[in-house]
Amino acid sequence: MAKTKVTSFQDLLRCPPGPVDLTTVQPRATPGLKGGKDEALKTLPDYAQRLADLQERLYAAAKTGDRRRVLLVLQGMDTSGKSGVVKHVAGAVNPMDCRIQSFKAPTKEELAHDFLWRIRRALPEAGELGVFDRSHYEDVLVVRVRELAPRAVWSRRYSSINRFEERLVADGCTVVKCFLHISPDAQKERLLARLDDPTKYWKYNPSDVDDRMLWPQFQDAYAVALEKCNTGPAPWYVIPADRKWYRNYAITRLLIEVLEGLDLGWPPADFSVKDERARLEKMPAPQPGG
Amino acid sequence: MAKTKVTSFQDLLRCPPGPVDLTTVQPRATPGLKGGKDEALKTLPDYAQRLADLQERLYAAAKTGDRRRVLLVLQGMDTSGKSGVVKHVAGAVNPMDCRIQSFKAPTKEELAHDFLWRIRRALPEAGELGVFDRSHYEDVLVVRVRELAPRAVWSRRYSSINRFEERLVADGCTVVKCFLHISPDAQKERLLARLDDPTKYWKYNPSDVDDRMLWPQFQDAYAVALEKCNTGPAPWYVIPADRKWYRNYAITRLLIEVLEGLDLGWPPADFSVKDERARLEKMPAPQPGG
Repeated sequence: MAKTKVTSFQDLLRCPPGPVDLTTVQPRATPGLKGGKDEALKTLPDYAQRLADLQERLYAAAKTGDRRRVLLVLQGMDTSGKSGVVKHVAGAVNPMDCRIQSFKAPTKEELAHDFLWRIRRALPEAGELGVFDRSHYEDVLVVRVRELAPRAVWSRRYSSINRFEERLVADGCTVVKCFLHISPDAQKERLLARLDDPTKYWKYNPSDVDDRMLWPQFQDAYAVALEKCNTGPAPWYVIPADRKWYRNYAITRLLIEVLEGLDLGWPPADFSVKDERARLEKMPAPQPGG
Repeated sequence: MAKTKVTSFQDLLRCPPGPVDLTTVQPRATPGLKGGKDEALKTLPDYAQRLADLQERLYAAAKTGDRRRVLLVLQGMDTSGKSGVVKHVAGAVNPMDCRIQSFKAPTKEELAHDFLWRIRRALPEAGELGVFDRSHYEDVLVVRVRELAPRAVWSRRYSSINRFEERLVADGCTVVKCFLHISPDAQKERLLARLDDPTKYWKYNPSDVDDRMLWPQFQDAYAVALEKCNTGPAPWYVIPADRKWYRNYAITRLLIEVLEGLDLGWPPADFSVKDERARLEKMPAPQPGG
Protein backbone atom coordinates (compact mmCIF):
# COMPACT_ATOMS: atom_id res chain seq x y z
CA MET A 1 0.00 0.00 0.00
CA ALA A 2 1.29 3.45 -0.86
CA LYS A 3 2.16 5.70 2.01
CA THR A 4 -0.56 8.29 2.58
CA LYS A 5 0.75 11.78 3.10
CA VAL A 6 -1.40 13.77 5.48
CA THR A 7 -2.72 16.83 3.72
CA SER A 8 -1.38 20.09 5.10
CA PHE A 9 -4.08 22.71 4.84
CA GLN A 10 -1.48 25.37 5.59
CA ASP A 11 0.42 24.33 2.45
CA LEU A 12 -2.75 23.90 0.39
CA LEU A 13 -4.35 27.22 1.22
CA ARG A 14 -1.40 29.52 1.78
CA CYS A 15 -1.42 32.41 -0.67
CA PRO A 16 1.66 31.95 -2.89
CA PRO A 17 4.25 34.75 -2.75
CA GLY A 18 4.26 37.38 -5.48
CA PRO A 19 1.45 39.05 -7.40
CA VAL A 20 -2.00 37.71 -6.48
CA ASP A 21 -4.60 36.82 -9.11
CA LEU A 22 -7.80 35.86 -7.32
CA THR A 23 -9.43 34.75 -10.58
CA THR A 24 -7.18 31.69 -10.52
CA VAL A 25 -8.82 30.45 -7.28
CA GLN A 26 -12.21 28.79 -7.72
CA PRO A 27 -14.60 29.84 -4.93
CA ARG A 28 -16.39 26.49 -5.26
CA ALA A 29 -13.21 24.43 -4.98
CA THR A 30 -12.67 22.07 -2.03
CA PRO A 31 -8.90 21.48 -1.87
CA GLY A 32 -7.79 18.72 0.45
CA LEU A 33 -11.27 17.28 0.79
CA LYS A 34 -11.64 14.32 -1.53
CA GLY A 35 -14.91 13.01 -0.09
CA GLY A 36 -16.82 16.25 -0.63
CA LYS A 37 -19.68 17.43 1.53
CA ASP A 38 -20.36 14.00 3.06
CA GLU A 39 -16.80 13.72 4.30
CA ALA A 40 -16.83 17.28 5.66
CA LEU A 41 -20.05 16.82 7.61
CA LYS A 42 -19.02 13.39 8.85
CA THR A 43 -15.57 14.34 10.12
CA LEU A 44 -16.19 17.92 11.26
CA PRO A 45 -17.43 17.01 14.78
CA ASP A 46 -14.22 15.08 15.45
CA TYR A 47 -12.07 17.92 14.16
CA ALA A 48 -14.06 20.41 16.22
CA GLN A 49 -13.39 18.26 19.29
CA ARG A 50 -9.68 18.16 18.45
CA LEU A 51 -9.64 21.93 18.06
CA ALA A 52 -11.36 22.31 21.44
CA ASP A 53 -8.79 20.02 23.06
CA LEU A 54 -5.86 21.95 21.57
CA GLN A 55 -7.36 25.31 22.53
CA GLU A 56 -7.80 24.08 26.10
CA ARG A 57 -4.11 23.15 26.19
CA LEU A 58 -3.22 26.66 25.03
CA TYR A 59 -5.40 28.13 27.74
CA ALA A 60 -3.98 25.78 30.37
CA ALA A 61 -0.42 26.70 29.35
CA ALA A 62 -1.19 30.37 30.00
CA LYS A 63 -2.01 29.49 33.60
CA THR A 64 1.63 28.56 34.07
CA GLY A 65 3.06 31.66 32.44
CA ASP A 66 3.09 30.70 28.75
CA ARG A 67 2.21 33.91 26.88
CA ARG A 68 1.33 32.29 23.56
CA ARG A 69 -1.99 32.98 21.89
CA VAL A 70 -3.60 32.73 18.44
CA LEU A 71 -5.38 35.33 16.36
CA LEU A 72 -7.68 34.36 13.50
CA VAL A 73 -8.28 37.28 11.14
CA LEU A 74 -11.31 36.96 8.83
CA GLN A 75 -11.74 39.13 5.77
CA GLY A 76 -14.07 38.85 2.82
CA MET A 77 -16.91 40.51 0.92
CA ASP A 78 -20.36 40.85 2.52
CA THR A 79 -22.02 37.42 2.90
CA SER A 80 -18.67 35.64 2.51
CA GLY A 81 -19.33 33.90 5.81
CA LYS A 82 -17.21 35.68 8.39
CA SER A 83 -19.92 35.44 11.07
CA GLY A 84 -20.55 31.84 10.12
CA VAL A 85 -16.91 30.99 10.79
CA VAL A 86 -16.96 32.85 14.10
CA LYS A 87 -20.00 30.88 15.14
CA HIS A 88 -18.50 27.59 14.06
CA VAL A 89 -15.08 28.14 15.66
CA ALA A 90 -16.33 29.72 18.88
CA GLY A 91 -19.00 27.03 19.07
CA ALA A 92 -16.30 24.36 18.89
CA VAL A 93 -13.93 25.68 21.54
CA ASN A 94 -14.74 26.89 25.03
CA PRO A 95 -16.25 30.33 24.34
CA MET A 96 -14.67 31.59 27.54
CA ASP A 97 -11.20 31.17 26.05
CA CYS A 98 -12.22 32.97 22.89
CA ARG A 99 -11.98 36.72 22.34
CA ILE A 100 -14.24 37.71 19.46
CA GLN A 101 -14.17 41.18 18.01
CA SER A 102 -16.22 42.51 15.13
CA PHE A 103 -14.91 45.69 13.52
CA LYS A 104 -17.48 48.06 12.04
CA ALA A 105 -16.94 51.50 10.53
CA PRO A 106 -14.67 53.27 13.04
CA THR A 107 -16.24 55.50 15.69
CA LYS A 108 -15.24 59.12 16.16
CA GLU A 109 -13.02 58.11 19.06
CA GLU A 110 -11.34 55.40 16.99
CA LEU A 111 -10.80 57.79 14.09
CA ALA A 112 -9.03 60.18 16.45
CA HIS A 113 -6.31 57.54 16.91
CA ASP A 114 -3.93 55.65 14.67
CA PHE A 115 -5.79 52.96 12.67
CA LEU A 116 -4.13 50.19 14.72
CA TRP A 117 -5.28 51.64 18.06
CA ARG A 118 -8.59 49.80 18.18
CA ILE A 119 -6.89 46.63 16.94
CA ARG A 120 -4.33 46.61 19.77
CA ARG A 121 -7.12 46.97 22.33
CA ALA A 122 -8.88 43.87 21.00
CA LEU A 123 -5.93 41.47 20.78
CA PRO A 124 -6.22 38.08 22.48
CA GLU A 125 -4.51 37.66 25.83
CA ALA A 126 -2.20 34.78 26.76
CA GLY A 127 -3.91 31.45 26.15
CA GLU A 128 -6.80 32.90 24.19
CA LEU A 129 -7.99 32.32 20.67
CA GLY A 130 -8.82 35.73 19.24
CA VAL A 131 -11.16 36.02 16.27
CA PHE A 132 -11.44 39.21 14.23
CA ASP A 133 -14.48 39.63 12.01
CA ARG A 134 -12.92 42.26 9.73
CA SER A 135 -9.76 43.89 11.00
CA HIS A 136 -7.05 46.47 10.35
CA TYR A 137 -7.22 45.34 6.72
CA GLU A 138 -10.40 47.38 6.26
CA ASP A 139 -8.05 50.38 6.37
CA VAL A 140 -6.46 49.29 3.09
CA LEU A 141 -9.66 47.81 1.60
CA VAL A 142 -12.83 49.88 1.97
CA VAL A 143 -10.74 52.94 2.76
CA ARG A 144 -8.85 52.49 -0.52
CA VAL A 145 -11.84 51.62 -2.68
CA ARG A 146 -14.09 54.36 -1.34
CA GLU A 147 -11.25 56.87 -0.96
CA LEU A 148 -12.05 57.44 2.72
CA ALA A 149 -8.48 58.63 3.24
CA PRO A 150 -5.90 60.12 0.86
CA ARG A 151 -3.69 57.69 -1.07
CA ALA A 152 -0.66 59.04 0.81
CA VAL A 153 -2.27 57.80 4.03
CA TRP A 154 -3.52 54.34 3.11
CA SER A 155 -0.55 53.48 0.90
CA ARG A 156 1.75 53.69 3.92
CA ARG A 157 -0.42 51.30 5.91
CA TYR A 158 0.72 48.08 4.24
CA SER A 159 4.16 48.38 5.76
CA SER A 160 2.71 49.57 9.08
CA ILE A 161 0.59 46.41 9.13
CA ASN A 162 3.59 44.22 8.33
CA ARG A 163 5.65 45.74 11.13
CA PHE A 164 2.73 45.47 13.54
CA GLU A 165 2.06 41.82 12.72
CA GLU A 166 5.76 40.94 12.82
CA ARG A 167 6.06 42.31 16.36
CA LEU A 168 2.86 40.55 17.36
CA VAL A 169 4.15 37.19 16.13
CA ALA A 170 7.54 37.77 17.80
CA ASP A 171 5.62 38.39 21.02
CA GLY A 172 4.03 34.92 20.86
CA CYS A 173 0.82 35.57 18.99
CA THR A 174 0.35 33.27 16.01
CA VAL A 175 -1.57 35.16 13.32
CA VAL A 176 -3.81 33.22 10.91
CA LYS A 177 -5.20 35.50 8.20
CA CYS A 178 -8.01 34.06 6.07
CA PHE A 179 -9.56 35.65 3.02
CA LEU A 180 -13.00 34.09 2.46
CA HIS A 181 -13.23 33.95 -1.31
CA ILE A 182 -16.77 33.89 -2.71
CA SER A 183 -18.11 34.33 -6.22
CA PRO A 184 -20.42 37.18 -7.24
CA ASP A 185 -23.10 34.55 -7.92
CA ALA A 186 -22.90 33.16 -4.42
CA GLN A 187 -23.17 36.66 -3.01
CA LYS A 188 -26.22 37.40 -5.13
CA GLU A 189 -27.89 34.21 -3.96
CA ARG A 190 -27.17 34.99 -0.30
CA LEU A 191 -28.39 38.59 -0.56
CA LEU A 192 -31.58 37.44 -2.28
CA ALA A 193 -32.12 34.88 0.48
CA ARG A 194 -32.17 37.75 2.97
CA LEU A 195 -34.78 39.55 0.90
CA ASP A 196 -36.90 36.42 0.64
CA ASP A 197 -37.13 35.90 4.40
CA PRO A 198 -38.71 38.56 6.67
CA THR A 199 -36.75 37.14 9.64
CA LYS A 200 -33.58 38.12 7.77
CA TYR A 201 -34.46 41.66 6.67
CA TRP A 202 -32.45 43.06 9.57
CA LYS A 203 -29.33 41.47 8.13
CA TYR A 204 -29.83 43.18 4.80
CA ASN A 205 -28.24 46.52 4.16
CA PRO A 206 -28.77 48.33 0.85
CA SER A 207 -25.16 49.49 1.09
CA ASP A 208 -24.11 45.87 0.58
CA VAL A 209 -25.39 46.21 -2.96
CA ASP A 210 -23.52 49.49 -3.35
CA ASP A 211 -20.34 47.63 -2.36
CA ARG A 212 -21.27 44.86 -4.78
CA MET A 213 -21.25 47.37 -7.63
CA LEU A 214 -17.60 47.95 -6.78
CA TRP A 215 -16.81 44.23 -6.83
CA PRO A 216 -13.84 44.47 -9.23
CA GLN A 217 -12.33 47.36 -7.25
CA PHE A 218 -12.69 45.42 -4.00
CA GLN A 219 -11.15 42.31 -5.55
CA ASP A 220 -8.22 44.42 -6.73
CA ALA A 221 -7.82 45.95 -3.28
CA TYR A 222 -7.86 42.44 -1.75
CA ALA A 223 -5.28 41.21 -4.25
CA VAL A 224 -2.94 44.09 -3.35
CA ALA A 225 -3.41 43.58 0.40
CA LEU A 226 -2.85 39.84 0.10
CA GLU A 227 0.30 40.40 -1.93
CA LYS A 228 1.84 43.18 0.15
CA CYS A 229 1.04 41.68 3.54
CA ASN A 230 1.74 38.03 2.75
CA THR A 231 4.74 37.86 5.05
CA GLY A 232 6.70 34.94 6.47
CA PRO A 233 5.62 35.55 10.07
CA ALA A 234 1.97 36.26 9.13
CA PRO A 235 1.00 34.67 5.81
CA TRP A 236 -2.40 34.96 4.12
CA TYR A 237 -4.61 31.98 3.40
CA VAL A 238 -7.22 32.03 0.63
CA ILE A 239 -10.29 29.97 1.59
CA PRO A 240 -12.70 28.99 -1.18
CA ALA A 241 -15.96 29.95 0.52
CA ASP A 242 -18.89 29.38 -1.82
CA ARG A 243 -19.48 26.14 0.05
CA LYS A 244 -20.09 26.86 3.68
CA TRP A 245 -19.24 23.35 4.85
CA TYR A 246 -15.86 23.53 3.11
CA ARG A 247 -15.11 26.96 4.53
CA ASN A 248 -15.77 25.78 8.11
CA TYR A 249 -13.91 22.55 7.53
CA ALA A 250 -10.84 24.21 6.03
CA ILE A 251 -10.50 26.83 8.76
CA THR A 252 -10.95 24.21 11.48
CA ARG A 253 -8.17 22.14 9.91
CA LEU A 254 -5.94 25.22 9.55
CA LEU A 255 -6.38 26.14 13.22
CA ILE A 256 -5.69 22.56 14.28
CA GLU A 257 -2.41 22.56 12.34
CA VAL A 258 -1.39 25.89 13.79
CA LEU A 259 -2.13 24.78 17.36
CA GLU A 260 -0.45 21.41 16.84
CA GLY A 261 2.61 23.35 15.69
CA LEU A 262 2.78 24.95 19.14
CA ASP A 263 3.42 21.48 20.61
CA LEU A 264 1.29 22.02 23.68
CA GLY A 265 1.29 19.58 26.58
CA TRP A 266 -0.66 19.76 29.82
CA PRO A 267 0.92 21.73 32.65
CA PRO A 268 2.24 19.50 35.45
CA ALA A 269 0.76 19.86 38.93
CA ASP A 270 2.42 22.59 41.00
CA PHE A 271 1.17 20.89 44.15
CA SER A 272 1.44 17.39 45.60
CA VAL A 273 -1.37 15.33 44.11
CA LYS A 274 -0.99 12.78 46.91
CA ASP A 275 -1.17 15.36 49.69
CA GLU A 276 -4.16 17.10 48.13
CA ARG A 277 -6.03 13.84 47.72
CA ALA A 278 -5.34 12.99 51.35
CA ARG A 279 -6.51 16.43 52.43
CA LEU A 280 -9.76 15.99 50.49
CA GLU A 281 -10.35 12.40 51.63
CA LYS A 282 -9.64 13.13 55.27
CA MET A 283 -11.66 16.29 55.53
CA PRO A 284 -15.04 15.54 57.08
CA ALA A 285 -17.79 16.48 54.67
CA PRO A 286 -18.99 19.90 55.77
CA GLN A 287 -22.59 20.13 56.77
CA PRO A 288 -24.66 21.75 54.02
CA GLY A 289 -25.97 25.06 55.17
CA GLY A 290 -23.61 25.01 58.14
CA MET B 1 -58.25 15.29 28.92
CA ALA B 2 -57.05 17.57 31.67
CA LYS B 3 -55.48 20.82 30.60
CA THR B 4 -51.70 20.70 30.98
CA LYS B 5 -50.24 23.75 32.60
CA VAL B 6 -46.87 24.65 31.15
CA THR B 7 -44.25 24.63 33.89
CA SER B 8 -42.80 28.04 34.63
CA PHE B 9 -39.18 27.64 35.60
CA GLN B 10 -39.16 31.21 36.84
CA ASP B 11 -41.86 30.30 39.36
CA LEU B 12 -40.29 26.96 40.22
CA LEU B 13 -36.77 28.19 40.84
CA ARG B 14 -37.27 31.71 42.15
CA CYS B 15 -35.87 32.12 45.64
CA PRO B 16 -38.87 32.79 47.94
CA PRO B 17 -38.87 36.14 49.73
CA GLY B 18 -37.72 36.30 53.34
CA PRO B 19 -34.99 34.43 55.20
CA VAL B 20 -33.17 31.87 53.06
CA ASP B 21 -32.41 28.37 54.28
CA LEU B 22 -30.35 26.60 51.64
CA THR B 23 -30.57 23.27 53.47
CA THR B 24 -34.19 23.04 52.36
CA VAL B 25 -33.16 22.89 48.69
CA GLN B 26 -31.90 19.49 47.53
CA PRO B 27 -28.89 19.90 45.19
CA ARG B 28 -29.87 16.67 43.43
CA ALA B 29 -33.46 17.74 42.82
CA THR B 30 -34.80 18.22 39.29
CA PRO B 31 -37.89 20.44 39.64
CA GLY B 32 -40.02 20.78 36.54
CA LEU B 33 -38.38 17.84 34.81
CA LYS B 34 -40.55 14.79 35.22
CA GLY B 35 -38.76 12.62 32.67
CA GLY B 36 -35.34 12.92 34.33
CA LYS B 37 -32.05 12.78 32.50
CA ASP B 38 -33.51 11.15 29.37
CA GLU B 39 -36.01 13.95 28.94
CA ALA B 40 -33.36 16.61 29.56
CA LEU B 41 -30.92 15.20 27.01
CA LYS B 42 -33.66 14.55 24.47
CA THR B 43 -35.26 17.99 24.59
CA LEU B 44 -32.22 20.17 25.28
CA PRO B 45 -31.18 20.57 21.62
CA ASP B 46 -34.65 21.94 20.76
CA TYR B 47 -34.59 24.33 23.70
CA ALA B 48 -31.09 25.44 22.80
CA GLN B 49 -32.35 26.21 19.29
CA ARG B 50 -35.28 28.16 20.69
CA LEU B 51 -32.92 30.13 22.92
CA ALA B 52 -30.72 30.89 19.91
CA ASP B 53 -33.73 32.10 17.93
CA LEU B 54 -34.91 34.36 20.76
CA GLN B 55 -31.42 35.77 21.32
CA GLU B 56 -31.16 36.54 17.59
CA ARG B 57 -34.42 38.51 17.83
CA LEU B 58 -33.02 40.49 20.74
CA TYR B 59 -29.89 41.24 18.73
CA ALA B 60 -31.92 42.15 15.66
CA ALA B 61 -34.10 44.51 17.70
CA ALA B 62 -31.00 46.39 18.82
CA LYS B 63 -30.25 47.17 15.17
CA THR B 64 -33.41 49.26 15.10
CA GLY B 65 -32.72 51.13 18.32
CA ASP B 66 -34.14 48.76 20.94
CA ARG B 67 -31.77 49.05 23.92
CA ARG B 68 -32.90 45.93 25.74
CA ARG B 69 -30.39 43.30 26.80
CA VAL B 70 -30.11 40.39 29.22
CA LEU B 71 -27.53 39.66 31.91
CA LEU B 72 -27.10 36.18 33.34
CA VAL B 73 -25.24 36.26 36.67
CA LEU B 74 -23.73 32.96 37.81
CA GLN B 75 -22.62 32.38 41.39
CA GLY B 76 -21.75 29.22 43.25
CA MET B 77 -18.98 27.36 45.07
CA ASP B 78 -15.94 26.06 43.19
CA THR B 79 -16.90 23.23 40.80
CA SER B 80 -20.58 24.22 40.97
CA GLY B 81 -20.56 24.44 37.16
CA LYS B 82 -20.40 28.14 36.33
CA SER B 83 -18.03 27.55 33.39
CA GLY B 84 -20.14 24.63 32.26
CA VAL B 85 -23.20 26.88 32.02
CA VAL B 86 -21.24 29.53 30.15
CA LYS B 87 -20.11 26.92 27.66
CA HIS B 88 -23.60 25.53 27.26
CA VAL B 89 -25.38 28.88 26.89
CA ALA B 90 -22.76 30.56 24.72
CA GLY B 91 -22.55 27.39 22.66
CA ALA B 92 -26.29 27.55 22.03
CA VAL B 93 -26.62 31.18 20.95
CA ASN B 94 -24.50 33.07 18.45
CA PRO B 95 -21.29 33.66 20.43
CA MET B 96 -20.94 37.01 18.69
CA ASP B 97 -24.03 38.32 20.47
CA CYS B 98 -22.78 37.09 23.81
CA ARG B 99 -20.59 39.09 26.21
CA ILE B 100 -18.91 36.73 28.63
CA GLN B 101 -16.98 38.04 31.59
CA SER B 102 -15.23 36.02 34.24
CA PHE B 103 -14.41 37.89 37.45
CA LYS B 104 -11.31 36.80 39.33
CA ALA B 105 -9.75 38.36 42.41
CA PRO B 106 -9.73 42.10 41.65
CA THR B 107 -6.58 43.66 40.20
CA LYS B 108 -4.79 46.58 41.81
CA GLU B 109 -6.52 48.91 39.33
CA GLU B 110 -9.93 47.44 40.10
CA LEU B 111 -9.34 47.72 43.85
CA ALA B 112 -8.58 51.42 43.39
CA HIS B 113 -12.21 51.91 42.27
CA ASP B 114 -15.62 51.30 43.75
CA PHE B 115 -16.47 47.56 43.69
CA LEU B 116 -19.05 48.09 40.94
CA TRP B 117 -16.57 49.82 38.61
CA ARG B 118 -15.35 46.65 36.89
CA ILE B 119 -18.92 45.37 36.72
CA ARG B 120 -20.18 48.46 34.86
CA ARG B 121 -17.42 48.09 32.29
CA ALA B 122 -18.43 44.52 31.50
CA LEU B 123 -22.19 44.98 31.11
CA PRO B 124 -23.87 43.71 27.93
CA GLU B 125 -24.68 46.27 25.26
CA ALA B 126 -28.06 46.61 23.54
CA GLY B 127 -29.13 43.29 22.03
CA GLU B 128 -26.48 41.26 23.79
CA LEU B 129 -26.73 38.39 26.23
CA GLY B 130 -24.17 39.07 28.94
CA VAL B 131 -22.91 36.23 31.10
CA PHE B 132 -21.04 36.84 34.35
CA ASP B 133 -19.02 33.98 35.78
CA ARG B 134 -18.92 35.34 39.36
CA SER B 135 -19.87 38.98 39.77
CA HIS B 136 -20.27 41.88 42.16
CA TYR B 137 -21.64 39.33 44.63
CA GLU B 138 -18.10 38.18 45.36
CA ASP B 139 -17.80 41.48 47.24
CA VAL B 140 -20.34 40.27 49.78
CA LEU B 141 -19.33 36.59 49.66
CA VAL B 142 -15.59 35.85 49.70
CA VAL B 143 -14.93 39.35 51.00
CA ARG B 144 -17.26 38.72 53.93
CA VAL B 145 -16.12 35.17 54.67
CA ARG B 146 -12.41 35.91 54.43
CA GLU B 147 -12.73 39.39 55.95
CA LEU B 148 -11.03 41.03 52.97
CA ALA B 149 -12.73 44.31 53.87
CA PRO B 150 -14.11 45.65 57.17
CA ARG B 151 -17.68 44.77 58.04
CA ALA B 152 -18.61 48.46 57.77
CA VAL B 153 -17.60 48.31 54.09
CA TRP B 154 -19.17 45.05 52.90
CA SER B 155 -22.34 45.44 54.96
CA ARG B 156 -23.24 48.57 52.99
CA ARG B 157 -22.83 46.77 49.70
CA TYR B 158 -26.12 44.86 49.72
CA SER B 159 -28.11 48.05 49.31
CA SER B 160 -25.58 49.42 46.79
CA ILE B 161 -26.11 46.26 44.75
CA ASN B 162 -29.89 46.59 44.96
CA ARG B 163 -29.81 50.20 43.78
CA PHE B 164 -27.37 49.33 41.00
CA GLU B 165 -29.45 46.41 39.74
CA GLU B 166 -32.68 48.39 39.99
CA ARG B 167 -31.26 51.12 37.75
CA LEU B 168 -29.89 48.53 35.38
CA VAL B 169 -33.29 46.85 35.00
CA ALA B 170 -35.01 50.23 34.59
CA ASP B 171 -32.54 50.92 31.79
CA GLY B 172 -33.71 47.85 29.86
CA CYS B 173 -31.33 45.17 31.09
CA THR B 174 -33.12 42.07 32.37
CA VAL B 175 -31.05 40.55 35.17
CA VAL B 176 -31.19 36.79 35.76
CA LYS B 177 -29.25 35.81 38.89
CA CYS B 178 -28.60 32.10 39.39
CA PHE B 179 -27.06 30.48 42.42
CA LEU B 180 -25.72 27.06 41.42
CA HIS B 181 -26.43 24.94 44.46
CA ILE B 182 -24.19 21.87 44.88
CA SER B 183 -23.68 19.50 47.77
CA PRO B 184 -20.35 19.09 49.57
CA ASP B 185 -20.27 15.51 48.27
CA ALA B 186 -20.60 16.59 44.66
CA GLN B 187 -17.80 19.08 45.16
CA LYS B 188 -15.56 16.44 46.68
CA GLU B 189 -16.22 14.14 43.75
CA ARG B 190 -15.45 16.87 41.21
CA LEU B 191 -12.27 17.99 42.96
CA LEU B 192 -11.07 14.39 43.17
CA ALA B 193 -11.79 13.96 39.46
CA ARG B 194 -9.34 16.80 38.79
CA LEU B 195 -6.70 15.07 40.88
CA ASP B 196 -7.28 11.78 39.09
CA ASP B 197 -6.66 13.20 35.62
CA PRO B 198 -3.31 14.81 34.72
CA THR B 199 -5.04 16.78 31.92
CA LYS B 200 -7.07 18.47 34.66
CA TYR B 201 -4.34 19.33 37.15
CA TRP B 202 -4.28 22.90 35.82
CA LYS B 203 -7.89 23.33 36.90
CA TYR B 204 -7.08 22.31 40.45
CA ASN B 205 -6.17 24.91 42.98
CA PRO B 206 -5.29 23.95 46.56
CA SER B 207 -7.08 27.09 47.69
CA ASP B 208 -10.34 25.48 46.53
CA VAL B 209 -9.93 23.07 49.43
CA ASP B 210 -9.21 25.97 51.76
CA ASP B 211 -12.53 27.48 50.67
CA ARG B 212 -14.18 24.11 51.14
CA MET B 213 -13.13 24.12 54.77
CA LEU B 214 -15.21 27.26 55.11
CA TRP B 215 -18.24 25.65 53.47
CA PRO B 216 -20.73 26.57 56.25
CA GLN B 217 -19.50 30.16 56.32
CA PHE B 218 -19.85 30.44 52.54
CA GLN B 219 -23.34 28.93 52.63
CA ASP B 220 -24.31 31.46 55.27
CA ALA B 221 -22.90 34.31 53.21
CA TYR B 222 -24.85 33.06 50.18
CA ALA B 223 -28.03 32.80 52.21
CA VAL B 224 -27.66 36.41 53.37
CA ALA B 225 -26.87 37.70 49.86
CA LEU B 226 -29.81 35.78 48.39
CA GLU B 227 -32.13 37.17 51.03
CA LYS B 228 -30.98 40.78 50.99
CA CYS B 229 -30.70 41.08 47.21
CA ASN B 230 -33.77 39.09 46.21
CA THR B 231 -35.58 42.10 44.79
CA GLY B 232 -38.61 42.41 42.55
CA PRO B 233 -36.68 43.85 39.60
CA ALA B 234 -33.77 41.40 39.99
CA PRO B 235 -34.80 38.21 41.80
CA TRP B 236 -32.49 35.32 42.65
CA TYR B 237 -32.99 31.82 41.31
CA VAL B 238 -31.64 28.76 43.13
CA ILE B 239 -30.58 26.06 40.67
CA PRO B 240 -30.05 22.55 42.02
CA ALA B 241 -26.70 21.79 40.37
CA ASP B 242 -25.45 18.38 41.45
CA ARG B 243 -26.79 17.10 38.14
CA LYS B 244 -25.08 18.91 35.30
CA TRP B 245 -27.77 18.02 32.75
CA TYR B 246 -30.46 19.51 35.01
CA ARG B 247 -28.44 22.65 35.68
CA ASN B 248 -28.01 23.33 31.95
CA TYR B 249 -31.60 22.43 31.20
CA ALA B 250 -33.04 24.65 33.94
CA ILE B 251 -30.99 27.71 33.00
CA THR B 252 -31.83 27.29 29.33
CA ARG B 253 -35.53 27.16 30.19
CA LEU B 254 -35.19 30.20 32.49
CA LEU B 255 -33.51 32.25 29.76
CA ILE B 256 -36.15 31.21 27.24
CA GLU B 257 -38.93 32.39 29.56
CA VAL B 258 -37.17 35.68 30.20
CA LEU B 259 -36.64 36.32 26.49
CA GLU B 260 -40.18 35.27 25.60
CA GLY B 261 -41.35 37.80 28.17
CA LEU B 262 -39.70 40.52 26.08
CA ASP B 263 -42.13 39.72 23.26
CA LEU B 264 -39.59 40.16 20.49
CA GLY B 265 -40.60 40.22 16.85
CA TRP B 266 -38.40 40.66 13.82
CA PRO B 267 -37.65 44.23 12.75
CA PRO B 268 -39.47 45.22 9.55
CA ALA B 269 -37.42 46.19 6.50
CA ASP B 270 -36.40 49.85 6.50
CA PHE B 271 -35.95 49.66 2.71
CA SER B 272 -38.14 48.60 -0.21
CA VAL B 273 -37.76 44.84 -0.56
CA LYS B 274 -39.13 45.04 -4.11
CA ASP B 275 -36.71 47.75 -5.20
CA GLU B 276 -33.75 46.00 -3.64
CA ARG B 277 -34.64 42.71 -5.30
CA ALA B 278 -34.92 44.49 -8.64
CA ARG B 279 -31.59 46.18 -8.10
CA LEU B 280 -29.92 42.86 -7.34
CA GLU B 281 -31.61 41.01 -10.22
CA LYS B 282 -30.86 43.67 -12.78
CA MET B 283 -27.29 44.29 -11.84
CA PRO B 284 -24.97 42.44 -14.18
CA ALA B 285 -22.90 39.95 -12.27
CA PRO B 286 -19.57 41.65 -11.74
CA GLN B 287 -16.56 39.90 -13.26
CA PRO B 288 -14.59 38.15 -10.55
CA GLY B 289 -11.17 39.69 -10.24
CA GLY B 290 -12.29 42.69 -12.25
